[in-house]
Amino acid sequence: MTRNELFKLIQKKKSFLCIGLDSDISKIPAYLNDYNDPVFEFNKQIIDHTQEFAIAYKPNLAFYESRGHEGWKSLEKTIQHLKKFDVFTIADAKRGDIGNTSSLYAKAFFEKLDFDAITVAPYMGNDSVSPFLKYKDKWVILLALTSNKGAFDFQFIENKNTGRKLFEDVLLKSEVWGSPDNMMYVVGATQADMLKDIRKIAHDHFLLIPGIGAQGGSLEEVARYGLNKHCGLIVNSSRGIIFASQDKDFAERAREKALELQQEMEKILTVNNLIK
Amino acid sequence: MTRNELFKLIQKKKSFLCIGLDSDISKIPAYLNDYNDPVFEFNKQIIDHTQEFAIAYKPNLAFYESRGHEGWKSLEKTIQHLKKFDVFTIADAKRGDIGNTSSLYAKAFFEKLDFDAITVAPYMGNDSVSPFLKYKDKWVILLALTSNKGAFDFQFIENKNTGRKLFEDVLLKSEVWGSPDNMMYVVGATQADMLKDIRKIAHDHFLLIPGIGAQGGSLEEVARYGLNKHCGLIVNSSRGIIFASQDKDFAERAREKALELQQEMEKILTVNNLIK
Repeated sequence: MTRNELFKLIQKKKSFLCIGLDSDISKIPAYLNDYNDPVFEFNKQIIDHTQEFAIAYKPNLAFYESRGHEGWKSLEKTIQHLKKFDVFTIADAKRGDIGNTSSLYAKAFFEKLDFDAITVAPYMGNDSVSPFLKYKDKWVILLALTSNKGAFDFQFIENKNTGRKLFEDVLLKSEVWGSPDNMMYVVGATQADMLKDIRKIAHDHFLLIPGIGAQGGSLEEVARYGLNKHCGLIVNSSRGIIFASQDKDFAERAREKALELQQEMEKILTVNNLIK
Repeated sequence: MTRNELFKLIQKKKSFLCIGLDSDISKIPAYLNDYNDPVFEFNKQIIDHTQEFAIAYKPNLAFYESRGHEGWKSLEKTIQHLKKFDVFTIADAKRGDIGNTSSLYAKAFFEKLDFDAITVAPYMGNDSVSPFLKYKDKWVILLALTSNKGAFDFQFIENKNTGRKLFEDVLLKSEVWGSPDNMMYVVGATQADMLKDIRKIAHDHFLLIPGIGAQGGSLEEVARYGLNKHCGLIVNSSRGIIFASQDKDFAERAREKALELQQEMEKILTVNNLIK
């Protein structure tokens, strides 16, 4: 998917909502265990009930890998199902390795699974990220400023030579590896005011914002500091939507939660003249 | 496996060799494609022929994930086979995510697959690493200084407040998250002289050294700067061993290459009074 197509999708659905498919098998409704693949059935129902309001879905790989090859099968079926809809698909994998190895991760997620985007960790630098950027209309979403407490351990370290924080160096260096057409950044919503500084560096890039809902970020604040002229935001909610109910009505309740967020987003897009 | 057990294993085998199972299906001998699971068959033969000389095996996840759930099955069979031998097993996965998600990665690699150790990326800080440290006799191998060109992008950034390089901050901060009994560090052999500085911080920790062989590091230099009183080194070779031949004699040739390295290591251990 191109940047322009993504913006059009946002305008069409009047939403910049991403739904995180953190589909923990121990948390899904018990009755689904009668299905052959409970996690896929859960994902399918969530997707079918929410795709009207969400522009993106983001399975986090840990929830699938923790179930071995069976979990990987659930993931394969989930991405196949997602491909039936007009949505942007993100593998939240946080991968990154030396060049020839990153190439194989790129193959895993862009060829074998056909995701539109993958989250990548920056620690190993350019050659760990570049192999992902060779795919046309595919995206790297690089970790810049994460939403967890551990973000303060290294991401705020100030560079003696430039005075910049590590996450700012990540933004600046990586800007030349890719472009706003194939690179996005993860920016934790728990630090919404930091978005101001981030937008000084990454004007045009899309930002993937986790941490709305369970992790405590505010949508309004994120929009205030993060919107750009192509929206430039993909805001994720996982548990707040998919586990709104853990009963038989889970998909309907997920739909309600997704609709609530979509309506809030529609207002924001309207006020900011990003939709008519 | 405890640190003491690992040192005893090194003494018993007179080796600190790790073999990287970067078992790229496009590079394994063509005749193996007649097997039901060519990659597992390749791994099995490599392991059977080399386990006498290697104390550790390290499958890199990218080579398995790139083949989807089938690749994951090959990995499951490989770890089951490894468990038959007296070896330390490392999932080279370079994972790391927010706390509850890292817990699931820990489950994937320590419970579901029963690896002894996993490589972890430090960018997201303490709570992304700690869940892996809760398992008794299991290990985190944290990326500190990697062997690739991209290592120079961020890992050498100097901290304005402490004057330390980023990889040194990673070493220092993480030392209190774990201990030399459950934490090791990845240190690229291409920068062997840096080991001097690293040993000033991490005296007692085991270091996992990639980059011997194809990536160009020298075993002698690594030993000169890296050995400690419990050996403290696990030196990895991947392609140099497993793809020594791409013909029917691949396992025998791998055995020869492993034996060569083991003999070199035996000399080093003897000279340094680490074995009798």
